[in-house]
Amino acid sequence: MRISELSERTGVSSASIKYYTREGLLPAGERTGYNSTAYDESHVARLRLIRALIDTGGLTVAAAGKVIAAIDDPDIVLDHVFGIAQQSVPRDATPPSAAAIEQVHAIMRERGWATVPQNPGIPLAAGVLDDLAMTRTDLSTVLPRYAEAIDMIAEADLDAVAASGDRDQMAEAVVVGIVLGDVLLAGLRRIAQESHTHRRYRGGVVPCQDHETDETTETKESS
Amino acid sequence: MRISELSERTGVSSASIKYYTREGLLPAGERTGYNSTAYDESHVARLRLIRALIDTGGLTVAAAGKVIAAIDDPDIVLDHVFGIAQQSVPRDATPPSAAAIEQVHAIMRERGWATVPQNPGIPLAAGVLDDLAMTRTDLSTVLPRYAEAIDMIAEADLDAVAASGDRDQMAEAVVVGIVLGDVLLAGLRRIAQESHTHRRYRGGVVPCQDHETDETTETKESS
Repeated sequence: MRISELSERTGVSSASIKYYTREGLLPAGERTGYNSTAYDESHVARLRLIRALIDTGGLTVAAAGKVIAAIDDPDIVLDHVFGIAQQSVPRDATPPSAAAIEQVHAIMRERGWATVPQNPGIPLAAGVLDDLAMTRTDLSTVLPRYAEAIDMIAEADLDAVAASGDRDQMAEAVVVGIVLGDVLLAGLRRIAQESHTHRRYRGGVVPCQDHETDETTETKESS
Repeated sequence: MRISELSERTGVSSASIKYYTREGLLPAGERTGYNSTAYDESHVARLRLIRALIDTGGLTVAAAGKVIAAIDDPDIVLDHVFGIAQQSVPRDATPPSAAAIEQVHAIMRERGWATVPQNPGIPLAAGVLDDLAMTRTDLSTVLPRYAEAIDMIAEADLDAVAASGDRDQMAEAVVVGIVLGDVLLAGLRRIAQESHTHRRYRGGVVPCQDHETDETTETKESS
């Protein structure tokens, strides 16, 4: 197909398609004449992956390029793809205290989790524990329950990766799962939190009008 | 204490303290003379909450102001505080398809989750399902397992809120839990994913040198 059709099918402009090609995120199409290039289904799939990583996952073009390079390089073993994808998600973690890092290590020991010392989740989680220690909110009781639930989630993540096919598809599943999984979980958590709140404080009754008005206003103002 | 001590104890500059006071995030200190103001422990706690919301939670000053106003207003019932806090977290959700929204509703029915139609988690989760449908990665099998784990997490969230004290502390726990909980869970997920990967593909052996070098480079380049 021509670039115009590729653009129409993916919703990505021709200029962006050319940009992603120059940056190495998208393989070049096949030159079919002086000024025309042919693209195929692999380009459609790749562009959709790029948009998902950037638009929903919040990755920069550079970070998306890096994880895509990891997908494409058959010499990169799967757990390195994991590491690269985990690092790609933008997070400004405050440097955590030694005490908070020890708290994370304690959870890891409790659950039998072993990682390289550089796993980005350690400072990320420890930074939150530092913040929590500063506030009046005590989440220490939720921590083991979070960890237990996360164990189920990680197990499901790995099953999905294993079921996804050959090495290339597994690598892609790792990237997609890590980047989009966080957002999916955040969405489900909002739904479950509200539902549990109604169950606990309103006998399961879902409020309507007043809440609706509030929420709509909030959305406009906070966006 | 004077503003200089408040600044030193919280790591927030005097200029920012004055800015937060003008914007209504921080109650004014007590005027003790022509050019001096006295602050107390409540100001320390509030400033730490503000920094946690903005630095770790990624909230804008305006969004932080909104959730803090909700904490401070005793007339706002707890599930509205939930709604306001949920809306405050910055997320650019692509408008999802009707099919993806129906998929989310199906999960909600399966788990008995009931929310107002405006719950922000619905478009957030549905947007991810749309993205996933575009990629080659099939996460449909993980979805019920994610939902089950999220049920445990939401239950733990609500228990922490209920245990936190009076209405003000509960409201603060709601905000802190929602905003920081996402980041904490993302951190734990990275740790568990890596650990499960080693368990499954390396017989539990954690790699060292080569992986280390990779990760360090990644961190620098992607930040």
